[in-house]
Amino acid sequence: MELNSYIDHTNLNATATLKDIEKLCEEAKKYHFASVCVHPYYVMVAKELLKGSNVEVGTVVGFPLGANTMEVKAFEAINAIENGADEIDMVINLSALKNKDYDYVKEEIEEVRDSIDGKVLKVIIETCYLSEEEIIKMTEICNETFVNFIKTSTGFGSDGAKVSDVELIAKHKNEILEIKASGGIRNVETAEDLINAGATRLGTSKGVILMDANHDYESDDECDCGDECHETEHKCRCGKCHCHHDE
Amino acid sequence: MELNSYIDHTNLNATATLKDIEKLCEEAKKYHFASVCVHPYYVMVAKELLKGSNVEVGTVVGFPLGANTMEVKAFEAINAIENGADEIDMVINLSALKNKDYDYVKEEIEEVRDSIDGKVLKVIIETCYLSEEEIIKMTEICNETFVNFIKTSTGFGSDGAKVSDVELIAKHKNEILEIKASGGIRNVETAEDLINAGATRLGTSKGVILMDANHDYESDDECDCGDECHETEHKCRCGKCHCHHDE
Repeated sequence: MELNSYIDHTNLNATATLKDIEKLCEEAKKYHFASVCVHPYYVMVAKELLKGSNVEVGTVVGFPLGANTMEVKAFEAINAIENGADEIDMVINLSALKNKDYDYVKEEIEEVRDSIDGKVLKVIIETCYLSEEEIIKMTEICNETFVNFIKTSTGFGSDGAKVSDVELIAKHKNEILEIKASGGIRNVETAEDLINAGATRLGTSKGVILMDANHDYESDDECDCGDECHETEHKCRCGKCHCHHDE
Repeated sequence: MELNSYIDHTNLNATATLKDIEKLCEEAKKYHFASVCVHPYYVMVAKELLKGSNVEVGTVVGFPLGANTMEVKAFEAINAIENGADEIDMVINLSALKNKDYDYVKEEIEEVRDSIDGKVLKVIIETCYLSEEEIIKMTEICNETFVNFIKTSTGFGSDGAKVSDVELIAKHKNEILEIKASGGIRNVETAEDLINAGATRLGTSKGVILMDANHDYESDDECDCGDECHETEHKCRCGKCHCHHDE
């Protein structure tokens, strides 16, 4: 399992400093993570820091409470794309969902989707506050709106990604929709359980810990595997030779 | 002490329903609170529900993390005013503050201030994440930008309003700047301590509990004080006759 390619390397701390974001981007390049996920304020900085790499720049919209107006979410998404974001993780309007105003929830997702010029859209449904029925409803709405990902959590709610929630989403999603599990992913076992349940992306601030603990990967700058390195044949990203010990 | 007039009656829960907001507005009218504080999504609803009352409609901008771009905060403020908001509680860019980019922090406040057409602006500095030096710096910036209030907390940080923080702000603020204490105000004693320290507004979701526990006030719909009611002479807001038992 190429764990690194699943990871959105995330720092959405309220007080994240420029130094923190520089570190995040360095790590993302080193481990060849799928993306970094940073606050809108840091999108331009991250874009510059990741120039020339394959790491995408992700950011958030209506985060973490989702109770902004539809117009503000669309504006924030456009602004993020203009600043260089490749991927947008938007929070749904949880209040509208609780009010059973499904038309509003759907229209808002479509509004943001149509504002971002074909970039990747992930829809955060904050599973910790939802009933099974609501999770299914949101999966259906994400199916119908053809967004790229349904995402479990902000990391600021009362709980993070649960395997049972990912399984429930996987059961009701169409073939196109992907699942991003996020919140509380702190070890390889949890990460693998969520992937086995159907997640194809993981949002975590613990990416480096996951990689260093994952025996399939070599995270040191110095690689001593002794194998000849052929990138086409080997998948590991040790940061130096890109070879894979266990293949 | 007319506690009711200090209170911004607040519901910023991620899953606040329409029913919750209707209840909040009913309570705000009954107790004659200074304002309600609701999510941007509910501003239009609250404005309608409070029509004909003296209760102001407050909402939040860049809430609760403050890490949106400056453009998005200004747009969100304008949008809120267009929807009927009378008061804006904006969160500063905490990352910029931590990066010591004080010019950015100040410029952003000015940008929002200049967008809201003279409405009341409260600047949330999230004291729980700040050093004493940073609290003083933010007080100075709020002095210089002539905003209406400096506000301690979002209620979503690691801690809420502390008396020592309000005292520190009071010591460094100019005569114009007012202090809103918020977060974790759950009883009359805390409320009074914060007011004595210098707060002139309190943000709390526990307004009704505070009023019911405050012996200066009568919160029942049925008033049995027996006094003739003269609003000009009496200050209590019992919801029926507006007379004050203890005067």
